[in-house]
Amino acid sequence: MKPVEYPNLGPLFRPKSIAIIGATEDPKRIAGLPLKYALDHGYRGKIFPVNPSRDLVRGLKCYHNVLDIPEEVDAAVIVVPAETVLDVLEQCAQKGIKAAVIGVSGFAELDEDGRKRQDRITEIAKQTGMRICGPNTNGLLNVHESISLGYSFAQEVVLPGRLGYVSQSGALLSATVPRFTNRGVGMSYFVGAGNQADLEVFDYVRYLIDDKNTDAIAVYVEGFNNPQKFMDVARLALERRKPIAMLKVGRSEMAAKAAKSHTGSLAGSDAVVDAICKQKGIARVNDFDELMAVSSAFLKCRSPKGNRVGVISSSGGAIGMVADCAMGTDLNFTDVSSEVKEEATKVLPWYGEFRSPFDIAGAGSKATQDIGLARAAVNYLLSDVNIDILLAIITPMDRRGTQNYIQAIVEASKASEKPVVLFSPMGSLREEEAEIFAKGDIPMFTDSVECVKALDALIKFGRAVKRHEETQKFTESPIPMNIEKIKEVLKTSSKVLSENESKELLSLYGIPMTKEAIAKSPEEAAQIASQIGYPVVLKVDSFDIPHKTDADAIKLNISNQAELTNAYHEIIGNSKRYAPDAKIRGVLVQEMVKEGREVIVGMSHDPQFGPVIMFGLGGIFVEVFNDVSLRIVPLTRADAEDMMKEVKGYKILEAFRGKPEADVEGIIDILLKVSRMAIDLGDVISEIDINPLMVLDKGKGVKAVDALIVLRN
Amino acid sequence: MKPVEYPNLGPLFRPKSIAIIGATEDPKRIAGLPLKYALDHGYRGKIFPVNPSRDLVRGLKCYHNVLDIPEEVDAAVIVVPAETVLDVLEQCAQKGIKAAVIGVSGFAELDEDGRKRQDRITEIAKQTGMRICGPNTNGLLNVHESISLGYSFAQEVVLPGRLGYVSQSGALLSATVPRFTNRGVGMSYFVGAGNQADLEVFDYVRYLIDDKNTDAIAVYVEGFNNPQKFMDVARLALERRKPIAMLKVGRSEMAAKAAKSHTGSLAGSDAVVDAICKQKGIARVNDFDELMAVSSAFLKCRSPKGNRVGVISSSGGAIGMVADCAMGTDLNFTDVSSEVKEEATKVLPWYGEFRSPFDIAGAGSKATQDIGLARAAVNYLLSDVNIDILLAIITPMDRRGTQNYIQAIVEASKASEKPVVLFSPMGSLREEEAEIFAKGDIPMFTDSVECVKALDALIKFGRAVKRHEETQKFTESPIPMNIEKIKEVLKTSSKVLSENESKELLSLYGIPMTKEAIAKSPEEAAQIASQIGYPVVLKVDSFDIPHKTDADAIKLNISNQAELTNAYHEIIGNSKRYAPDAKIRGVLVQEMVKEGREVIVGMSHDPQFGPVIMFGLGGIFVEVFNDVSLRIVPLTRADAEDMMKEVKGYKILEAFRGKPEADVEGIIDILLKVSRMAIDLGDVISEIDINPLMVLDKGKGVKAVDALIVLRN
Repeated sequence: MKPVEYPNLGPLFRPKSIAIIGATEDPKRIAGLPLKYALDHGYRGKIFPVNPSRDLVRGLKCYHNVLDIPEEVDAAVIVVPAETVLDVLEQCAQKGIKAAVIGVSGFAELDEDGRKRQDRITEIAKQTGMRICGPNTNGLLNVHESISLGYSFAQEVVLPGRLGYVSQSGALLSATVPRFTNRGVGMSYFVGAGNQADLEVFDYVRYLIDDKNTDAIAVYVEGFNNPQKFMDVARLALERRKPIAMLKVGRSEMAAKAAKSHTGSLAGSDAVVDAICKQKGIARVNDFDELMAVSSAFLKCRSPKGNRVGVISSSGGAIGMVADCAMGTDLNFTDVSSEVKEEATKVLPWYGEFRSPFDIAGAGSKATQDIGLARAAVNYLLSDVNIDILLAIITPMDRRGTQNYIQAIVEASKASEKPVVLFSPMGSLREEEAEIFAKGDIPMFTDSVECVKALDALIKFGRAVKRHEETQKFTESPIPMNIEKIKEVLKTSSKVLSENESKELLSLYGIPMTKEAIAKSPEEAAQIASQIGYPVVLKVDSFDIPHKTDADAIKLNISNQAELTNAYHEIIGNSKRYAPDAKIRGVLVQEMVKEGREVIVGMSHDPQFGPVIMFGLGGIFVEVFNDVSLRIVPLTRADAEDMMKEVKGYKILEAFRGKPEADVEGIIDILLKVSRMAIDLGDVISEIDINPLMVLDKGKGVKAVDALIVLRN
Repeated sequence: MKPVEYPNLGPLFRPKSIAIIGATEDPKRIAGLPLKYALDHGYRGKIFPVNPSRDLVRGLKCYHNVLDIPEEVDAAVIVVPAETVLDVLEQCAQKGIKAAVIGVSGFAELDEDGRKRQDRITEIAKQTGMRICGPNTNGLLNVHESISLGYSFAQEVVLPGRLGYVSQSGALLSATVPRFTNRGVGMSYFVGAGNQADLEVFDYVRYLIDDKNTDAIAVYVEGFNNPQKFMDVARLALERRKPIAMLKVGRSEMAAKAAKSHTGSLAGSDAVVDAICKQKGIARVNDFDELMAVSSAFLKCRSPKGNRVGVISSSGGAIGMVADCAMGTDLNFTDVSSEVKEEATKVLPWYGEFRSPFDIAGAGSKATQDIGLARAAVNYLLSDVNIDILLAIITPMDRRGTQNYIQAIVEASKASEKPVVLFSPMGSLREEEAEIFAKGDIPMFTDSVECVKALDALIKFGRAVKRHEETQKFTESPIPMNIEKIKEVLKTSSKVLSENESKELLSLYGIPMTKEAIAKSPEEAAQIASQIGYPVVLKVDSFDIPHKTDADAIKLNISNQAELTNAYHEIIGNSKRYAPDAKIRGVLVQEMVKEGREVIVGMSHDPQFGPVIMFGLGGIFVEVFNDVSLRIVPLTRADAEDMMKEVKGYKILEAFRGKPEADVEGIIDILLKVSRMAIDLGDVISEIDINPLMVLDKGKGVKAVDALIVLRN
């Protein structure tokens, strides 16, 4: 794959001079706002209003045409009627302007004429190299440098801070920035991507990954213009340790599609988005509240080293609320170590045995009446070796007690590398509490679902970072193989390889197979069977009969030569009846694998994201529960482990119903080998389906019993 | 079951006179607040402050002892130190006071001494008939009649309205009432139950069910003091059509327990709480935000007739957000009928074919620039026969357009019986929009998760009401049976009935069984087998060997007499080796049911809620996925249907893998019969386990293949 190219967004986010084309004085009209905001923010570069019917706007000399401006212009904001945008844009290009915001609507979102205008914008960007934000957007704001190229009223309320916010929809950007502000989440930049005629959401995100004023990125997106770019940005963000929270709509549409499709095409695109988020530690959220909650945690907390959550609370009920919401997440509520338990119990004897969760309001709130004891309680939890994150819960107590409690939390958080978060179901703190709390830099949540989502996002990002570091250390030993030669051979193959051919190809990658050979006669079959050893399986071998069961051309558990001879003739007869024109190569005589648990390993091409690896358990697990896991390539070892453990039926691979654990190492090995194949041969292979892969008991390996490879074109 | 008795809460919620015991002037101390609030609210009855060290408090004559008060007193608020509460309480009883709020802490929540004090409170209530709220609570407020018996600062901010709010925790009550107010949800009453020494959460809820000022009830509860009362209140609320939203913590604890337990004991209490909520239409929520959202929908919307949701929106992205969150809920997004489609397409031609969801901002917002067109668009959706509920989504548009759009929604909602809800991801409306919106009585949500939860709660409550009405019409035909005689026989049985005995009992209720009989010799077995017809199954029949597979005392698929004789001897031999002291009654010869899908039907006793009916699919469905559904008795036909459809693997009972649909009517029949048995014999039977019940193809019935009944004691 060739590397993804990104635009230089310097002229857009940090222009040295701006032209505002269509500028007027009236702040009630869209055309009046960009200049007002640029001036209000105190932009330090030069501003050139452009309007054929004005000589002055807000006291600035106004040019009748952008070409009349005697100096160099970096960026333009265009607020003229949609019909004249194209002309203006061409003049901008001619003037050598490097970036433009098209701040008006009337393009693809409107009608067919609009769609054509928009296509022309895309062409102009490509031909001239000028980069374009919009159309149908309200622009952007560089908060720290006070550079406004737009007119969203969010500009009036945004807090300065370290979150970069990219929204596909300008309207939803305006609607939600005030809510970030209400929660105390400040921003470095915000931008509405609009119709994305040229620049798209992940171009902006890419810029923010390397921005020094941005510690975390929040994204609202409805679809991917360039899925490769999303994948690449996800990878880069993880490499640079920049956490991303993403609200992407469209889960349900895909779910509907996925429900319709069968095993082979389970790799529905939205499920792949989930897979990518898991692999790269992106926090995918369900609504704007969660987007804000997770952003706030990413901004204020370091990545935890693990998922062990200690809890201190002034309410038992609130602990339960959080614990209930944490079901099915990665949060692991752990007790303190025995050393800390012993010591803390001595220092805080009134509470019985010290433990996490610790109810600080118990025992008559003894530990909050004395700041020293409050500090001790918080520190025993936060410093314990068993605990990676501290969740502090605050509910109304008598005033002095609450203040001591918050004071202790704030102090402990400052002195520790571990993340501390506050859950306050009351919705807000009292003034005197808020004053103390403000001295720390701790995220506060008032909703248990959001609190848990934020903790889970921190844990998952921390884990992704750690795994990424481990992967860097690990050098893959390449499978020595002449890939070009394989491709050469595949060029002459039929589109669907026969089972035997499929297995030969998989064998080249070291994937273990059942012993088997093709027989052209019953006698030859008997000879092969005696070499393999009974019982055996017989199957027709034909390009033209990929679904052997439908043709009744497969016979299991054949235990002697007489049965074998009968089966041979039956298979040939059934196949000919089923597909009279089928070219039959022979009959496959195969080792019968009786023990073992059935799993499915597959590779398919997602139309958006390319090769996707699929794992599932055999039979009803996939058919009834759609219980599969997906990942994009390349797969790391940790990804392969996750895939296995993610399926709900994973338990049957563990010691189960009197059976020992299955050979999960063997499964991981196959997943990594199929990933390797997808990378090497993904441009010629469309689908790989190993179904079933029989997994023997631990230490005994795995065997592919049936396999199907489909080539592209 | 004898009917649940409820206290008369009139003297507590509507007392004609109040004593405030421990009253002082200082509004900074708890003891100073109840009098202040009672006066501030303008209480119209008589107030008697009681305090041995005062003669006047806030200008009112203060008595040194409650017994000194010369007039009758209905209720008392007690704010004296915990140590003196018991004395005061006894004086109150002596005075003839009917209800008391104990507004101080220092009881079971503190230590062992406190626990003893609290037990004594319970005794006093029982002995004297005085009803007690608390201790460890901040009391209650009757909002409409301005009667305050407590000191929660929530009194200062609560809005008058029609929600009754009962919180087990006084602290969380204070914390959350302001949040209800911020959302515009007004209340009729609120009460903090505290430690529930006497009155418990569902006593208050019971009172509110019949209260004319209360249209819906919100409940926060941590556990059930009296589970029977919860069940009874749930039933009553449905009968009286009063919707309840409930936040109950403790899901996760039970989930942990449930994970540990095996099939037979899956009826963990929290899962039963879910079951009761489903049966009775209670909306169980996950956090306070959802509690507020659902309460607001219950207050402002009628019950919808069905689950078909029409959508009108000014943003495509916001539609996607809601649709994503609606996955797995009962919301059914439907298009309009073809009649409306045709007509509306003519009236609004610019949008292409009219449909739901309808994007009113499409086509250049044509339909919002003209109030007539906006009205038409909204009305076509709301009045359509295919639509039960209208979801209107509003995102920023140009001002005039938004106002027309909101105006049309408000008007349409007023003229229709169908519920209309508004989703506004921007978080709040602009002033001029809010003014129009306020003229309607439409719930507004700013979070897609909460919006969906509220819609789902409306749908589920509407459905429960409808089903309840249908059940009323349906008169159960009783199974003619002498229950007392059965009980008599069971008294002499061993605790665990043998398979054959279990089946005999089930047969009495008309549950179809495999043909079978007990043989005492191989010859007798052969005779029975030839009557039943081969193939047959042989199993040991012994009280002492309930787990026949473990003993290798079961042989399947015996196809002739020679095999049968061998199997007979093997079973006897294996059984004797497995349990040398077992009393072996003989060998059961049983019809072999080969076709059919395996399901499990069971009954068990939940320690809190009594008889619970369980349904699941056989094998890994239950063992791996814990995929079961539960309901309490009595089961309605609709409950039985729901139970079946609720399991995730339901699909295998439908036409699946080339098989026709299974006989689901047969399953419903068995569930209802087991429910009947649980009602008749629940006091003597502890457990029923029909596993497997073989379900044949549609129209061919079901057969219990194995069954086990365990008696109580």
